[in-house]
Amino acid sequence: MTTTRPGGRSARVRDAVRQATLTELAEHGYNGLTVENVALRSGVHKTTVYRRWGNAEGLIADALELAQGEPWPVPDTGSLQEDLREIAQLVRNGFADPVAGPIAAAFVAAAVQSGGAARSLHDFFVARHEQAAKVVERAVERGELSPDTDAADVIRMAVAPIYYRLFVTHEPVTARDAERAADAAATAAREGVI
Amino acid sequence: MTTTRPGGRSARVRDAVRQATLTELAEHGYNGLTVENVALRSGVHKTTVYRRWGNAEGLIADALELAQGEPWPVPDTGSLQEDLREIAQLVRNGFADPVAGPIAAAFVAAAVQSGGAARSLHDFFVARHEQAAKVVERAVERGELSPDTDAADVIRMAVAPIYYRLFVTHEPVTARDAERAADAAATAAREGVI
Repeated sequence: MTTTRPGGRSARVRDAVRQATLTELAEHGYNGLTVENVALRSGVHKTTVYRRWGNAEGLIADALELAQGEPWPVPDTGSLQEDLREIAQLVRNGFADPVAGPIAAAFVAAAVQSGGAARSLHDFFVARHEQAAKVVERAVERGELSPDTDAADVIRMAVAPIYYRLFVTHEPVTARDAERAADAAATAAREGVI
Repeated sequence: MTTTRPGGRSARVRDAVRQATLTELAEHGYNGLTVENVALRSGVHKTTVYRRWGNAEGLIADALELAQGEPWPVPDTGSLQEDLREIAQLVRNGFADPVAGPIAAAFVAAAVQSGGAARSLHDFFVARHEQAAKVVERAVERGELSPDTDAADVIRMAVAPIYYRLFVTHEPVTARDAERAADAAATAAREGVI
């Protein structure tokens, strides 16, 4: 979409637009995300934002593409169960965070309303599952799990109950809930179900 | 909200409004759900719909309250794993259904956008988990599971990966995916993790 030259003018503009997109999402949600507001907040001219990002879906796609490339702390505790617990807590804490939480929730909300945002979020999660799958691959190398284990599915099982509570049943998520989801995934993987 | 007399005028009006709400949700989603459109489609006068249901949130709350009271086929195969598989397939098939699927998806989408819809959907799922928990209680009675098992959490684990794929990662859900989620939940329950 844009040619990124780190530190260049284009990269600075892209970063300003992305920051403004995240702030607008946090404050007004997907329904309040407009090119006009992002232009105003970022100080980038409206015609530039329209030309490069097009609309709210384009703004979301770009913000998620940048998020995808960011470092993500894949745990390496030496035990699958502990690694999955850390991943589950990371997810729980992310949504509980007063700054990051509303932004992450806005991405999920955007994706249930817009096909374009759904495709962007899909790509984000494919990348995230691949990164997190490392903890399963290490468990296979240690002999904890069968090489047939579906690594991405172990990750899905460990975090899905957290998302289910947050975005489907709208129930609270305790630290114990997150731990239990991780333990269930670890057990199912160890028993060869996943 | 309304006094329900089965077969009475009030019940007929309520049912007409509910049917119109479901059809509007299926066709236009939550963002297109308005009292005006529901009044037009149901043939119930607009001022009546406003007075009794108030707004889109009230329409959703009432439709979900009625759905909660409807019979739901709790499986009883004699095996926890098979029962959970049937529940998971029921969820998968529900969202894949060309008529019921878009309506169910619209409820989920409404709840991530509206606090009122979120509370209604929460209540719906509390009731649904309680109904489904019967399969866990029967497994405890048969001696398959410890009496300490958290029945609602077994249900959550069996279905959460389906919702996660549908509404978070926007990945397809195969019959095998649903089965695997059920099997993982059954295994974790049997191993005393849930």
